[in-house]
Amino acid sequence: MERIPFETVHAEFRRVLESVGFTEAKADRTAQLFAENTRDGVYSHGLNRFAGFVRGCQNGKVRLDVEAECVHRMGVIEQWDGKTGIGLLNAEAAMGRAIEIAHEHGVGCVGLRNTNHWMRAGAYGLQAADAGCIGICWTNTTVLMPPWGSAEKRIGNNPLTLCVPYLGNHILLDMAMSQYSNGKLEVLKRRGESLPLAGGYDEAGDLTTDPGAILDSKRALPIGYWKGSGLALILDLMGTLISGGDSTQQISARPDETNVSQVYMAIDVGSLSGQQIVEETVNRIVTDFQDVSPLDGISAVRYPGEGMLATRRDNLANGIPVDPDLWSEVLEMP
Amino acid sequence: MERIPFETVHAEFRRVLESVGFTEAKADRTAQLFAENTRDGVYSHGLNRFAGFVRGCQNGKVRLDVEAECVHRMGVIEQWDGKTGIGLLNAEAAMGRAIEIAHEHGVGCVGLRNTNHWMRAGAYGLQAADAGCIGICWTNTTVLMPPWGSAEKRIGNNPLTLCVPYLGNHILLDMAMSQYSNGKLEVLKRRGESLPLAGGYDEAGDLTTDPGAILDSKRALPIGYWKGSGLALILDLMGTLISGGDSTQQISARPDETNVSQVYMAIDVGSLSGQQIVEETVNRIVTDFQDVSPLDGISAVRYPGEGMLATRRDNLANGIPVDPDLWSEVLEMP
Repeated sequence: MERIPFETVHAEFRRVLESVGFTEAKADRTAQLFAENTRDGVYSHGLNRFAGFVRGCQNGKVRLDVEAECVHRMGVIEQWDGKTGIGLLNAEAAMGRAIEIAHEHGVGCVGLRNTNHWMRAGAYGLQAADAGCIGICWTNTTVLMPPWGSAEKRIGNNPLTLCVPYLGNHILLDMAMSQYSNGKLEVLKRRGESLPLAGGYDEAGDLTTDPGAILDSKRALPIGYWKGSGLALILDLMGTLISGGDSTQQISARPDETNVSQVYMAIDVGSLSGQQIVEETVNRIVTDFQDVSPLDGISAVRYPGEGMLATRRDNLANGIPVDPDLWSEVLEMP
Repeated sequence: MERIPFETVHAEFRRVLESVGFTEAKADRTAQLFAENTRDGVYSHGLNRFAGFVRGCQNGKVRLDVEAECVHRMGVIEQWDGKTGIGLLNAEAAMGRAIEIAHEHGVGCVGLRNTNHWMRAGAYGLQAADAGCIGICWTNTTVLMPPWGSAEKRIGNNPLTLCVPYLGNHILLDMAMSQYSNGKLEVLKRRGESLPLAGGYDEAGDLTTDPGAILDSKRALPIGYWKGSGLALILDLMGTLISGGDSTQQISARPDETNVSQVYMAIDVGSLSGQQIVEETVNRIVTDFQDVSPLDGISAVRYPGEGMLATRRDNLANGIPVDPDLWSEVLEMP
């Protein structure tokens, strides 16, 4: 597999975005986020999704000529309208504002409605951690899973991110409510690989490790069975209430997944406790977490986000491995 | 199984607590919370835990002569010291303060350190929802699970509650990071029942539905495999940082589980959006969630907390079913 330098990936993404009507500034930031997702090994929300994103911008699903704005404030909570704009930039603006509020008041919370797919949830958690804050954010989605107790698709998989600042090596949990995200299922199906553990049901109603069978049946397994199903419902409820936006039900009534609802929270633990105490505390807890004997066949117990950081270092040093077909598609666009 | 009226359960708990040195007011509120947990079917953190709680009060593990107090404030975040006091009352005070701050500023956050077991996480989520707020709270614990990739017990199961107000029938997710809580494993082992789904590993390292085998191996399965393991770590990190208290590692260095760290957040969605909009939105989303065909053998898809409400109604109408041995133990105390 070819490996492309980060700067080249960024530059090609930027070139394509400018050519479909992005301003220079918006093209640069959006390309940066897509390139960083790819650099960090989150190919499902980087290169693999880029062509589809560009088509959405061309067909009017994503509006390029709008800016998210604050429409209501109550204390440390703000409600923002994303105006069906670029999901990644709306997300960055919303978390940026939550961080500002947190720096002043300890906690900041922004509910963002009428926005589009933010690609990687974790990107905005890392943004908060870079600013010394705990970052929490989640989104609702169109229907992707059945609730526990049914085979009928009715809830989103509502990705949730929690990020704790840790020098440059933030602890980052970035998880969908399904055991495997649709993006992950698509990547493994493309590679012809099986899941390591059962990730959903096939058309016959049996648990399976075949990603294609789960995509066909649309019966992904929620994490923790009934718990992930309940958590998906609660995240949709909270996101809809805090943003004043559309719920999974309303989003699913449209042909495309647009105008989703998201929540961004930042908690300024640096100002609360002092940055040095934060660093010492996190280091002590993480060191202890990893000081265990790994099971046979596992090299070490890793904290959430640690594998991603190793991939990032490798990809920065050796170039980002790209699927040749997908990369050619970008080079030929538009 | 004998069924005892709620008032009798409450009165007996109160009598016992007063006899071991609780003030009248503290005995009444603590007995109320224990009785409500039992009324709602959470026997593992109601009647089944009461005698152990009383012993902890008698042997000095729980201090009866202290009050939690605020020791630091930064904006809408307060850090409280629970002074190794009564966990249930510290929890109620902390969530009460988070609600007060939320009513004024949209969001309130209280980190509570040096506190004791709060029994049922959900109780304080319901407290927030009764006040028109979304309630979020979690606690760290002593070590109870291995991190993903190891068989060595090293993380807590760190129960997390998310509660959304819904008329009297709040949506309540109350979940440990293990697929089954230790309390649940103990209840099923006592009844000689198996788990419906694999809940951990036996001593040989195989997945099992035998609650006793999991209690013996101390290898409970985290929800969503690596995701629940990561979430447990992050909740410990966040709880320790926000409260300024002890981490799971520090708690586990003591012979008993004392001086745990907890976080309470309230988000005043009623003031943000208007109570009527909250009610209509929640009703619309929940109605849609349940409007699916249940799988064979399942009567209906329920939202988190709905089964608990049915148990509550039944127990209020017909008395609370009690384990005769445990109930006799209470009647004979002290």
